[in-house]
Amino acid sequence: MKLSNRINRVLIVGGTHGNEFTGAYLIKLFEQFPELIHRDSFETLTLLANPQAFAVGRRYIDKDLNRCFLRQNLDDAMLCSYEELLARNIDDLYGQNSKSSVDFILDLHSTTANMGVTILIDNEEPFNLQLAAYLSDVHPAIKIYSSGNSGRSQNALRSLGKFGIGIEVGSIPQGVLNADFFLKTQSIIYTILDYLELCNEDKLPAFSNTFILYKYIEAIDYIRNEYGEITAMIHPQLQFKDYEALNSGDPIFLRFDGQIIPYVAKLTTYPVFINEAAYYEQGTAMCLTQKHQITI
Amino acid sequence: MKLSNRINRVLIVGGTHGNEFTGAYLIKLFEQFPELIHRDSFETLTLLANPQAFAVGRRYIDKDLNRCFLRQNLDDAMLCSYEELLARNIDDLYGQNSKSSVDFILDLHSTTANMGVTILIDNEEPFNLQLAAYLSDVHPAIKIYSSGNSGRSQNALRSLGKFGIGIEVGSIPQGVLNADFFLKTQSIIYTILDYLELCNEDKLPAFSNTFILYKYIEAIDYIRNEYGEITAMIHPQLQFKDYEALNSGDPIFLRFDGQIIPYVAKLTTYPVFINEAAYYEQGTAMCLTQKHQITI
Repeated sequence: MKLSNRINRVLIVGGTHGNEFTGAYLIKLFEQFPELIHRDSFETLTLLANPQAFAVGRRYIDKDLNRCFLRQNLDDAMLCSYEELLARNIDDLYGQNSKSSVDFILDLHSTTANMGVTILIDNEEPFNLQLAAYLSDVHPAIKIYSSGNSGRSQNALRSLGKFGIGIEVGSIPQGVLNADFFLKTQSIIYTILDYLELCNEDKLPAFSNTFILYKYIEAIDYIRNEYGEITAMIHPQLQFKDYEALNSGDPIFLRFDGQIIPYVAKLTTYPVFINEAAYYEQGTAMCLTQKHQITI
Repeated sequence: MKLSNRINRVLIVGGTHGNEFTGAYLIKLFEQFPELIHRDSFETLTLLANPQAFAVGRRYIDKDLNRCFLRQNLDDAMLCSYEELLARNIDDLYGQNSKSSVDFILDLHSTTANMGVTILIDNEEPFNLQLAAYLSDVHPAIKIYSSGNSGRSQNALRSLGKFGIGIEVGSIPQGVLNADFFLKTQSIIYTILDYLELCNEDKLPAFSNTFILYKYIEAIDYIRNEYGEITAMIHPQLQFKDYEALNSGDPIFLRFDGQIIPYVAKLTTYPVFINEAAYYEQGTAMCLTQKHQITI
């Protein structure tokens, strides 16, 4: 159970999306009270990632910052929208080629989907699986979601760190603080920092080596007309049912004209990000996952 | 119970705020199937009020359209932000000085607050009170909120009609369709159209002449620091408790540093619009109301 890589520098990031207030205000709290995130064996840094978007309460100014970290884009000086410049700046400050490169990035998000407290991992490397197992042991109500198959490990802010995970909490409307999820996120952050400290000090206690992992399979779009306009909404029976089994024949969409659209598939899946506001423009009504019991 | 004013033209408005999807998509549905809102005794028109804001999924482009209808501003040709121009255009089309002036405006909104299905009235004129009593009789779960004391009767889009009310449904995140509230809003619209038809035809049946009215008293802001930044959030015990009694001593805010701020007042009040996303920038954490039993 020993962590193979010593962690020397941790970066906690909030406001990567300017209208996800949980992370942004936690960063402000930590800036005011740095002792809350101080641990002896490593340095903890904080970043309010998209200050202009946060100031106007929008996800982004020009484009989604959390899709701007592909190496080829960071290296392309011709890309100069606000978020592309911001990404380059963050890479210069904390990326693996910077003087103060960080070993671990913890990126704080919220979602309008009913995903409770979800830990986002981008791949199933041992570091992530062990951390997921530990967190599942300490906080049994959390969910672990791997977006590995979606390609998100490539372009997300947390890809800049040697290691990186996200915390996604909801349902929370954009532009709103929810105290319950604020406190839950804060608690998980402390557990993660404690975990890294225990690893560094080689004092990790025994914990359960199994947990449930929801692995991304594919995204499903809304039903749209020839102009690209949506003509259906998430069916009321599916709304808020993130992480619950979706079986072939279950209602999935309700057309505005009243027609029910069932889910048709061979396999039972477990949808997440159901009705996430930010994903309407991306053409994603939900992400389907498969549920796996993992033993590390 | 006879309606003193015959209704000849009704305007149903959605998308006054571009990120409140319930109304916007209901307007699209009614445009496709106008028979749904056809009634024999009056003409029913529809309006997607802020098409540019809807296209980009934001409340507004330059300023809140639903605060742009003060007569002195409509008459001031020097005001030319997008929404000020839009307001003038809507006034030209449907205002009381237009050729096709409307008798009744029904403006469709959603809120991140847990207000269920709320009917918004801007004053306590007999027309509004009778309609509120009828709707409360047919749909006992709805709430009736009078914003009269807040000055909203002056500058809202619905002030253009001879009569006008709003429907506010939630909790719904901005930029999200919730099928349950879509269907509930649709049902209330049909009840209102049926009511106007029955009034016009002098066929209104008997219904209960009493209902509960929540009357605006004042708005309360978040706690802020010297830079205007909020330093507290709605206390978890108050979150989602719209229309429930708030007594002196009850927790109202939770500071980021953990301190609980109690409500201090002589009177029990009934807060609404608790944690409405759009009101952070207006300096409103909630609106306090008093609860009245009304008999018409």
